[in-house]
Amino acid sequence: MRIGVLGGGQLSRMLAEAGFPANLRFTFLDPAPDACAGARGRLLVGDWDDHAALSELAGCDRVTFDFENVPGMVLDDLARRVAVRPSPAALAVSQDRLEEKILFRSLDMPVPEFAPVDTRAELAAAVDRIGLPAVLKTRRMGYDGKGQAVLRHAEDLEDAWQRLGEHALIVEAWVDFRFECAITAVRDAGGEIRFYPLSRTWHRGGILRAALAPLPGLEELQRNAEAMARRLLEHLDYVGALTLELFVTGDGLLVNEFAPRVHNSAHWTIEGAVTSQFENHLRAVCDWPLGDTSPAGVSLMINFIGEMPAREAFLNIPGLAWHDYDKAAREGRKVGHCTLSAPDRETLAERLPTLRGLVDPELAEKLPEMIQG
Amino acid sequence: MRIGVLGGGQLSRMLAEAGFPANLRFTFLDPAPDACAGARGRLLVGDWDDHAALSELAGCDRVTFDFENVPGMVLDDLARRVAVRPSPAALAVSQDRLEEKILFRSLDMPVPEFAPVDTRAELAAAVDRIGLPAVLKTRRMGYDGKGQAVLRHAEDLEDAWQRLGEHALIVEAWVDFRFECAITAVRDAGGEIRFYPLSRTWHRGGILRAALAPLPGLEELQRNAEAMARRLLEHLDYVGALTLELFVTGDGLLVNEFAPRVHNSAHWTIEGAVTSQFENHLRAVCDWPLGDTSPAGVSLMINFIGEMPAREAFLNIPGLAWHDYDKAAREGRKVGHCTLSAPDRETLAERLPTLRGLVDPELAEKLPEMIQG
Repeated sequence: MRIGVLGGGQLSRMLAEAGFPANLRFTFLDPAPDACAGARGRLLVGDWDDHAALSELAGCDRVTFDFENVPGMVLDDLARRVAVRPSPAALAVSQDRLEEKILFRSLDMPVPEFAPVDTRAELAAAVDRIGLPAVLKTRRMGYDGKGQAVLRHAEDLEDAWQRLGEHALIVEAWVDFRFECAITAVRDAGGEIRFYPLSRTWHRGGILRAALAPLPGLEELQRNAEAMARRLLEHLDYVGALTLELFVTGDGLLVNEFAPRVHNSAHWTIEGAVTSQFENHLRAVCDWPLGDTSPAGVSLMINFIGEMPAREAFLNIPGLAWHDYDKAAREGRKVGHCTLSAPDRETLAERLPTLRGLVDPELAEKLPEMIQG
Repeated sequence: MRIGVLGGGQLSRMLAEAGFPANLRFTFLDPAPDACAGARGRLLVGDWDDHAALSELAGCDRVTFDFENVPGMVLDDLARRVAVRPSPAALAVSQDRLEEKILFRSLDMPVPEFAPVDTRAELAAAVDRIGLPAVLKTRRMGYDGKGQAVLRHAEDLEDAWQRLGEHALIVEAWVDFRFECAITAVRDAGGEIRFYPLSRTWHRGGILRAALAPLPGLEELQRNAEAMARRLLEHLDYVGALTLELFVTGDGLLVNEFAPRVHNSAHWTIEGAVTSQFENHLRAVCDWPLGDTSPAGVSLMINFIGEMPAREAFLNIPGLAWHDYDKAAREGRKVGHCTLSAPDRETLAERLPTLRGLVDPELAEKLPEMIQG
């Protein structure tokens, strides 16, 4: 079976790696000639409206995407010619932070206070109502903290407006969270849904740095997160893997956003779950039975941002898996990750000191506490 | 880093799949234009003495092989130009059943009675000494039971001689084993050795059908097998993964043969060990630190011989991983495998009934007993 993928980054690359044992073949469309998934299948280099390339994708058995910013019209057109999963409608909602939040609210998924902002006056009014601090975000095309401005003081509004005011915007209340987590779910075309355990996530500079799962004591959060994800999946008649990013506050969960695709917060499932998010996404996309989302031991995923570190010291750590996306070094760019797995939390905790000096010192310091759940 | 591989079958294909996360690249040499590893890297189609192709392999950073019948001279020549792992000397020993058995004996590795046979008279004399039943085998180029004849009665000698007499031969005593098993070990260039737990194996028609690991109650066999494998690895100054095939008899272990490469009996390590045999072979070949050979749960690997079965029923089984080598159907050919993994032996045993009707009935009947160890 041939899978067409819009986007050729590391998510597509890992999707292909997960599909190889089952003999799936991949064709990727990406504007970048050096898109790193190119080494895992046929790479069509072209823009999202490249008709010849899109026709080739339409000749695949299924089409999916690794990237939220594919133009909706492109996907709509493809969906008339080939089974596109998840559906263009699911992608469309995720592309607009305002629509997304309105949908969350309609599905009883608690969200931070928010308001659409199209004018300078609306920004002032929204901040008056919501209070400071708050975050001003572009409604579209943001990722990894791009297209965002934190508003701490009244003076910050003008700067933020100068920087982002040309876009359609949303302002959201600042969330004073205890920690962040994410739930990844997968739904097949018959409506069956399976959930991975919550990943505890840690961001810095708007970029995910680490994820840890499963953790003890999260049973109630897990239940609530599953219930919310289920409502969203069913509402969207969703097929494939989806991740819901969540804030854990003193009052429970607040939903931040969802990603209609495989997600960085669940990379640990490659080694740390019976069936990975990548394989399960493909199973759903191919109409195959879903695989087991149970965790296998406890896993810690750490992103490599900017450039790959020296390999040797990492590979010396027992239970460490090394992922190098073969991407050129660039500030703020996700170029690889590692996953440290252990049979249980105690063993993982014992191995944490091996990471000192190898990973972000702030993360190294935070890990022993994170691992307590 | 680019790895050149002599041979382009499923072992090379899975080797590449194991190397992809670490961004290894592969070039395969195989005489068959449809060699199934071709979908996982650059395939050079050529004979083992194709000078242009061998020069391309010599341009890789390392060379290894997935196939024991590569001519020794080819490997010797390559080893003068590029690091070949394991060494040509290790391959050479494994290519000749007589040399192999003599080496085993010299290393205190117990073997069945055997005798070289070059003439009809030597065959008669050998059988007189060793007794019947016995097995007549070609010294070279045998695999999956090919080039063998079982001698049960005196009348069988003439037929066997007619069939195989043109080759250099060895006759071996028939081993009345309780069961068969195999140990896979990996050794790095610095001399560090790691062992996987013994796999219990089950053959029919000379072809491996299933492997199961780890099993309880094999501690002493494991120690003995490790000690033997260690002597062999050290004697050969071996680098890479190696499998020793063993008979378990009333008197302990007898060594059957070794494979200087990744081996079918350890395919379960892909899902069932922290680091798979494929990844560990590559780590050794690349001079990277070895990975953890600990099992993760309990795994049962079942080969698909001849043709792939229907996928759906298998994928419905929790913890089942599906491997389709994309090979044309042909009688007796290994075209794929599945591995059924579970956190523990009890859970695996509970899942066995799901295999009824899907796998060889003789195997399905044997599994509940095999799993008891």
